[in-house]
Amino acid sequence: MRIARFRRAGTTSWGLVAPGGLVVDRRELGIPEPDVRSFIASGRRAEAPAGAAGAPLDELELLPPVELGKVVCAGANFGAHRAEAGVDPDRPAYPTIFTRYPDAHVGHDVDIVRPGASERFDYEGELAVIIGRPARGVPMATAMDHVYGYACFDDGSARDWQTRASQWIPGKNFERSGSIGPVLVTADEVPAIGDSWLVARVNGEERQRARIQDMLFPIAELIAYISAFTPLEPGDVIATGTPGGVGLFMDPPVFLEPGDVVEVEIDGVGLLRNRIARG
Amino acid sequence: MRIARFRRAGTTSWGLVAPGGLVVDRRELGIPEPDVRSFIASGRRAEAPAGAAGAPLDELELLPPVELGKVVCAGANFGAHRAEAGVDPDRPAYPTIFTRYPDAHVGHDVDIVRPGASERFDYEGELAVIIGRPARGVPMATAMDHVYGYACFDDGSARDWQTRASQWIPGKNFERSGSIGPVLVTADEVPAIGDSWLVARVNGEERQRARIQDMLFPIAELIAYISAFTPLEPGDVIATGTPGGVGLFMDPPVFLEPGDVVEVEIDGVGLLRNRIARG
Repeated sequence: MRIARFRRAGTTSWGLVAPGGLVVDRRELGIPEPDVRSFIASGRRAEAPAGAAGAPLDELELLPPVELGKVVCAGANFGAHRAEAGVDPDRPAYPTIFTRYPDAHVGHDVDIVRPGASERFDYEGELAVIIGRPARGVPMATAMDHVYGYACFDDGSARDWQTRASQWIPGKNFERSGSIGPVLVTADEVPAIGDSWLVARVNGEERQRARIQDMLFPIAELIAYISAFTPLEPGDVIATGTPGGVGLFMDPPVFLEPGDVVEVEIDGVGLLRNRIARG
Repeated sequence: MRIARFRRAGTTSWGLVAPGGLVVDRRELGIPEPDVRSFIASGRRAEAPAGAAGAPLDELELLPPVELGKVVCAGANFGAHRAEAGVDPDRPAYPTIFTRYPDAHVGHDVDIVRPGASERFDYEGELAVIIGRPARGVPMATAMDHVYGYACFDDGSARDWQTRASQWIPGKNFERSGSIGPVLVTADEVPAIGDSWLVARVNGEERQRARIQDMLFPIAELIAYISAFTPLEPGDVIATGTPGGVGLFMDPPVFLEPGDVVEVEIDGVGLLRNRIARG
């Protein structure tokens, strides 16, 4: 399944992407759940038949493909990103975990807002994992059973605000500073997610490239670690960390300007594109 | 006004504390809002007349006095706590900000859960500020207009998990590891909050004592700084940081054990008490 959430004629709805690429509203498919979180929690599957009436994805105003609740983020989870940041590139003893608020994200093809108060606004291409089953103290061996699906993610970061004090939260939580999408792709559609390449581009120029399997703490271990301290519910999101190649560590550093276009593409998951607007 | 939220006979409700100390259910007072956040947002005031029918506060199962949404926390905001932590006790250039999830908190007189996975569980007595009016990029000069009221707060911290990596989030977000209450006291009842003493005790022994005015970044400045990066809504909470005297920095360190009782008391705001239960 590929799930899209969108706003049309002033109302919010969601639906499934049919094989031809059209988004079929969930009401057309007889799905009772008004929100994606409830649908995920229901455990039911549905299908949008080819030829069903729908709207092209790129004609809809897309929202994050699931109503965001907890967005738990891994930092420094790729060796090359650790190396460029000047820390030991080897896997440390424990993951680095921080959080983003739901309102810090927009959907695909919607402008990301560069904070007016930041001079150093940066992209971070990532894989987002969407939780399917409640997870509390889940062991690593069964952690992947709690994965519902994936989306592309831009962990947009105001570097100046991120490093003003030891904790990164301010730089990671500006309103509409990140994005997720374009759609939610269920895990069965990408069985070999580890083999997928993650690529991030700015104005078409490739800046980041890594395999998902290059993560120092793989998805299962992140779920185990995070669910050991905070309960995860269907629809919650784990952003799994960014590879090397962010603007901050270019020589000289290059930050995002209004009008720039950021793309995060992951094989089998999709291509998330956002223009940068002035805040 | 003093607002209490509680569970009784399986249902959640809220009400006002009458002068005699009884909690009068909001329906008895003709208040239409089913939740405290909506009531705060409505801007209306109400009063529980002395003699109104109600239940004694200590016979109710108290919940956090407002439905928690954003809980934004200031760290290292008292000189004595900075000194004991071995960092420069002077006011730094910017506040340290992190976050706690709503489910990391219980109400007054409900057990706090010491995480089974932590050997170094600690208290942090704090003042919680509850936001009354939406705040987005609020200047310091008018920031106090956005304060609705106050409560006592225990920023319960699993020190081992807090310091495993640079970001504190895991140690600050164990389920039911902190508390807020006992009630929400509106700001008009504590006009000189800066003069209030904050005291924290463990099993009756005083461990922390400071004046609210000793904060390095006062309430108004925290609201201005936080609302510059994330929008605050009525009912959102800012935990303003803990004074010196946490268990971690005692010599030798002393951590909380099941059965211990933590109290956070603030003049004019109340006394928040929680027993520590085994997780």
